[in-house]
Amino acid sequence: MGSKVTVGLIGAGRIGRLHARHLALHVPEAELTAVADVVLEAAQQCAAEFGIPRAVQDPYEVLEDPEVEAVIICSSTDTHTRFIEAAAAAGKHIFCEKPIDVDLDRIDRALAAVERAGVKLQVGFNRRFDPSFRRAREVVASGRIGQPHLLRITSRDPEPPPIEYIRVSGGIFLDMTIHDFDMARYLIGSEVEEVYAAGGVMVDPAIGEAGDIDTAVVVLRFENGVIGTIDNSRRAVYGYDQRVEVFGSGGVVAVGNRTPDAVTIGDGEGIHGPLPLYFFIERYVDAYVAEMKAFLRCILEDTDPPVTGLDGRVPVVMAYAARRSLEENRPVRLEEIEG
Amino acid sequence: MGSKVTVGLIGAGRIGRLHARHLALHVPEAELTAVADVVLEAAQQCAAEFGIPRAVQDPYEVLEDPEVEAVIICSSTDTHTRFIEAAAAAGKHIFCEKPIDVDLDRIDRALAAVERAGVKLQVGFNRRFDPSFRRAREVVASGRIGQPHLLRITSRDPEPPPIEYIRVSGGIFLDMTIHDFDMARYLIGSEVEEVYAAGGVMVDPAIGEAGDIDTAVVVLRFENGVIGTIDNSRRAVYGYDQRVEVFGSGGVVAVGNRTPDAVTIGDGEGIHGPLPLYFFIERYVDAYVAEMKAFLRCILEDTDPPVTGLDGRVPVVMAYAARRSLEENRPVRLEEIEG
Amino acid sequence: MGSKVTVGLIGAGRIGRLHARHLALHVPEAELTAVADVVLEAAQQCAAEFGIPRAVQDPYEVLEDPEVEAVIICSSTDTHTRFIEAAAAAGKHIFCEKPIDVDLDRIDRALAAVERAGVKLQVGFNRRFDPSFRRAREVVASGRIGQPHLLRITSRDPEPPPIEYIRVSGGIFLDMTIHDFDMARYLIGSEVEEVYAAGGVMVDPAIGEAGDIDTAVVVLRFENGVIGTIDNSRRAVYGYDQRVEVFGSGGVVAVGNRTPDAVTIGDGEGIHGPLPLYFFIERYVDAYVAEMKAFLRCILEDTDPPVTGLDGRVPVVMAYAARRSLEENRPVRLEEIEG
Amino acid sequence: MGSKVTVGLIGAGRIGRLHARHLALHVPEAELTAVADVVLEAAQQCAAEFGIPRAVQDPYEVLEDPEVEAVIICSSTDTHTRFIEAAAAAGKHIFCEKPIDVDLDRIDRALAAVERAGVKLQVGFNRRFDPSFRRAREVVASGRIGQPHLLRITSRDPEPPPIEYIRVSGGIFLDMTIHDFDMARYLIGSEVEEVYAAGGVMVDPAIGEAGDIDTAVVVLRFENGVIGTIDNSRRAVYGYDQRVEVFGSGGVVAVGNRTPDAVTIGDGEGIHGPLPLYFFIERYVDAYVAEMKAFLRCILEDTDPPVTGLDGRVPVVMAYAARRSLEENRPVRLEEIEG
Repeated sequence: MGSKVTVGLIGAGRIGRLHARHLALHVPEAELTAVADVVLEAAQQCAAEFGIPRAVQDPYEVLEDPEVEAVIICSSTDTHTRFIEAAAAAGKHIFCEKPIDVDLDRIDRALAAVERAGVKLQVGFNRRFDPSFRRAREVVASGRIGQPHLLRITSRDPEPPPIEYIRVSGGIFLDMTIHDFDMARYLIGSEVEEVYAAGGVMVDPAIGEAGDIDTAVVVLRFENGVIGTIDNSRRAVYGYDQRVEVFGSGGVVAVGNRTPDAVTIGDGEGIHGPLPLYFFIERYVDAYVAEMKAFLRCILEDTDPPVTGLDGRVPVVMAYAARRSLEENRPVRLEEIEG
Repeated sequence: MGSKVTVGLIGAGRIGRLHARHLALHVPEAELTAVADVVLEAAQQCAAEFGIPRAVQDPYEVLEDPEVEAVIICSSTDTHTRFIEAAAAAGKHIFCEKPIDVDLDRIDRALAAVERAGVKLQVGFNRRFDPSFRRAREVVASGRIGQPHLLRITSRDPEPPPIEYIRVSGGIFLDMTIHDFDMARYLIGSEVEEVYAAGGVMVDPAIGEAGDIDTAVVVLRFENGVIGTIDNSRRAVYGYDQRVEVFGSGGVVAVGNRTPDAVTIGDGEGIHGPLPLYFFIERYVDAYVAEMKAFLRCILEDTDPPVTGLDGRVPVVMAYAARRSLEENRPVRLEEIEG
Repeated sequence: MGSKVTVGLIGAGRIGRLHARHLALHVPEAELTAVADVVLEAAQQCAAEFGIPRAVQDPYEVLEDPEVEAVIICSSTDTHTRFIEAAAAAGKHIFCEKPIDVDLDRIDRALAAVERAGVKLQVGFNRRFDPSFRRAREVVASGRIGQPHLLRITSRDPEPPPIEYIRVSGGIFLDMTIHDFDMARYLIGSEVEEVYAAGGVMVDPAIGEAGDIDTAVVVLRFENGVIGTIDNSRRAVYGYDQRVEVFGSGGVVAVGNRTPDAVTIGDGEGIHGPLPLYFFIERYVDAYVAEMKAFLRCILEDTDPPVTGLDGRVPVVMAYAARRSLEENRPVRLEEIEG
Repeated sequence: MGSKVTVGLIGAGRIGRLHARHLALHVPEAELTAVADVVLEAAQQCAAEFGIPRAVQDPYEVLEDPEVEAVIICSSTDTHTRFIEAAAAAGKHIFCEKPIDVDLDRIDRALAAVERAGVKLQVGFNRRFDPSFRRAREVVASGRIGQPHLLRITSRDPEPPPIEYIRVSGGIFLDMTIHDFDMARYLIGSEVEEVYAAGGVMVDPAIGEAGDIDTAVVVLRFENGVIGTIDNSRRAVYGYDQRVEVFGSGGVVAVGNRTPDAVTIGDGEGIHGPLPLYFFIERYVDAYVAEMKAFLRCILEDTDPPVTGLDGRVPVVMAYAARRSLEENRPVRLEEIEG
């Protein structure tokens, strides 16, 4: 393999186009050679926009394309494991958006297929690649704040997704908190043993009618003793609120929000600063690029992906444990979900 | 009753002397006429320092002194209810440090005595009088951030108390978290129905040997649906960390730490700011003064105390619920404690 | 001399009462025994409020009172040097509000009288005692930011004084900037050789009609090469803006504003923080207390006052240089004023 | 003209390559068709990196290339006006890096040539396109802070350029402060009438030996009465310090520094935040892209460039006025330079 990797894109929706743009503009190590989407027009439009030579409707044409060395799977969640298995069988390296699947058996089969094929699989937990969270992890790992004791993750969206999406999303823990479960493992570098979840419908009754909640708090107990909390809301009127704090025996490290500018205004009422960057597209643009670069690098240098299949699986288990905890109002051990 | 209230002080330890200083210097509405301490020398020293005419060893000499209109009870916790009952019987208004007691029956008897006597009782939750927390409460109460959804309290001490103290303190929830339980009720203006507590010994094994924990997370479920979290540590190396955040449908209000100065230094390593004010003596000096002034005002203007006997009782129930939650690793409803 | 100093107060106006309060409540080393004010009622009211045994109309009764060891001169500026000379002749130590006078000859005569009498004279540059500015000075003096290169002082009042006051104040440089001239010398620890001033009437035409300006920028050239700027406004709608920055070869130290609380609010419009403390009474309360304590300490310990007569004189020279610079629109050396 | 503009690049040094990258990746409205550099290899390498079809040594081959509609002039300053005149004669639109030239006559001839040819000329004052400074300008222009009174610009580089560069740069005012002169005009929307400059050699004696200074303060008097200050240093050890503040009758707007991450660390020593983004390449990446987009847009939509030839000329006059002010230690009116 040379200094470039030929890449095929599966799915030309919002996140697929986002990756296509980054690959085309910022990741010279990648050469996008094909894009597939069940809506052919979407594939064609994406191809035109980012100079991809080939646009098809059938994902298998890309998954099995002999000229493609790696695939980026951005199709709907229910197709992920099928495509992973096909790609692995065809010897392609795989980047798959989160979650791998909402069914643990299917995840296990897919991971086994990847294992057998000896290809690389990286799962799309983009926040690990954000410069601030990455630095926070480095600070924790370096011992700069001593032994970690407490973790806090604030993760609030500016607005809920459409109700139709919520109905099929698997619920807030699988759809939204899953990022925070990954962040928790990433920052602390230890596994969670038990979770306790509290939550409610506070933002929009329609979310409750769709069988989900929109506001949640999750307590995490880690193997190494750390206690963590996550709080989620589907609607923060002031924008995308993405903060973490790790407190330890030697200090504390905190990640605050980023803003589009550094302008403050003082008047008779107060001192006014800018809102956080609106949503994940704005906040995590650098992270998405770095994520793609890391995927390409692990192929070119034949190293382990920075986010593995197991990293993709564990947060799904955590999400199920949180859901059961919420239903039964008791702490739930992760091993109960596996059992 | 005129424009001054004659006040007797029971207990001339650290907190007693603190109140004596504030009453002498900053609360002209009060006239400190007597101080009692089981260690007579302590009473005499306090009297000399703050110009109190009378220093005695026997608290009942002050509690029943016909010239005293109000008493400030700062003796050890196990004496509180006895002194409250004696003061009430003698018709004195009462300020009592927190907690009223660690036994709910004794608390109830004391509150009943106060009720019968028709005197005023204010309990020493000083943080309510901090300008920042007070303003946060006003912001929430005004509807400025809409309907509250999530509450977060960070409350970390710079260093643990002596082990001897920890042994008799009733445990972290009764000694330390009790302030946060009060703050939670104060900020949200609704009662907590259920708590879930997680915790461990992370700071000092000796605290574990004394039967306590030193690090804790508590989840609160309020009657009005709000979900809150409290996190505590007995040792934050960067100082007294006292922050709150209330998130609601219309926005968020946050209280940050206060610092002794507003100096930042930039060098080749970073931009460096000051540590928080070291501990409660430094951080809550204004709050302690305002607390005393409020007590005097409610006597002079014959209004209800801003922190009532019930406000003193409920956090004790919450502390017991948290303790049971920790022991049994399950959410505990406050009514279980009452039952 | 024992552990207490008997103190007489000359002038019971706003600043006089402020010092009286601090001396009475926070400076146990001082015993206020007399107060004089040309308005006898003012003296009597002050005496009643702060428990001063003696209130008189004639300042000389205090200045020459054999029981008084030190005097605090807070009368109108035109009386300062007369009272200093009388106090010095009577062997009293002297604290005098700024400016000593607006006439350099009179200042020199007063300083000579102090010198002859061997009493102590401290001039009221209160900002030096603010914890933040004091810490900034310590940072600079310690070499923490290397060799200083640039100084910046922002000093803006929330509102102009009454026009009647402006008419007799000697102008903005003598009345307002004088504090910043002192701060400049204090922070850099070197003398200013030359100033250049620009300014205008932007806040209120009435100030211009009274012969003064309300907005100014002054450039300072120090003997040690540092270049400084001061900017002043008589009206900052967001409150008292008091910041400094010293930039050096090894870094930068900055003092920001202090606020009455640490509350921020986020809503759909932005993140909103509190205004600065309103004006000098609020901002410099700690500084005023520390200033008085320092004066008492230098008497009790027989050390040099932290702000000397010379420190009181030099900023007056700087103010005249700035005024001439403004009039002639050219840089003016301080020695031109002396010549 | 269609939806794309064919662009030729003159000069493939650091800033030329920077523009090439942005045009290639982020400005789809531009099609880079040729690049020239006196060092042919530099042109060829740039062409290879950004997919430019043609690389030549002779700039006139690009300036007169019939397929080129617009040129980006990034060659050394002394060639700017020659290339502008040639490009104008050939009917090309022109983007020229700052300064247009250091000689006002040559600037005037170049601007006249542009005028005659009816082509567009945009000058490279990139900071105007920074989101924060742009927003500050909008805030001022909107009247949100009332009538402006005071302006402050802090502009400090992390390290000086090589001494060889300083020798030919025309001095700090023409090389470095020129950006701040432009920013001053941009933010206030009024012309400067007079400047007063102070400065010295504080960073490196070699800069003084090269005939320049490395630390400067400039006072600006605007036609509309605003008084501004600029402070410059060639070396801020904590990085690129780029802040502005505009103070007005209705409030204040301030632009702070941007940082690479939002991570703070608290330990026993203090609370530590990140340094500013290192230098202009890091800080102004968004601004450079927006600058190019604005240039292309003014061509495609046939509107006036956002930074005109006059905008390029005036700061050169200001720089000469500042230099004369420094030499003669007196305020200098801009009309003296023109005379």
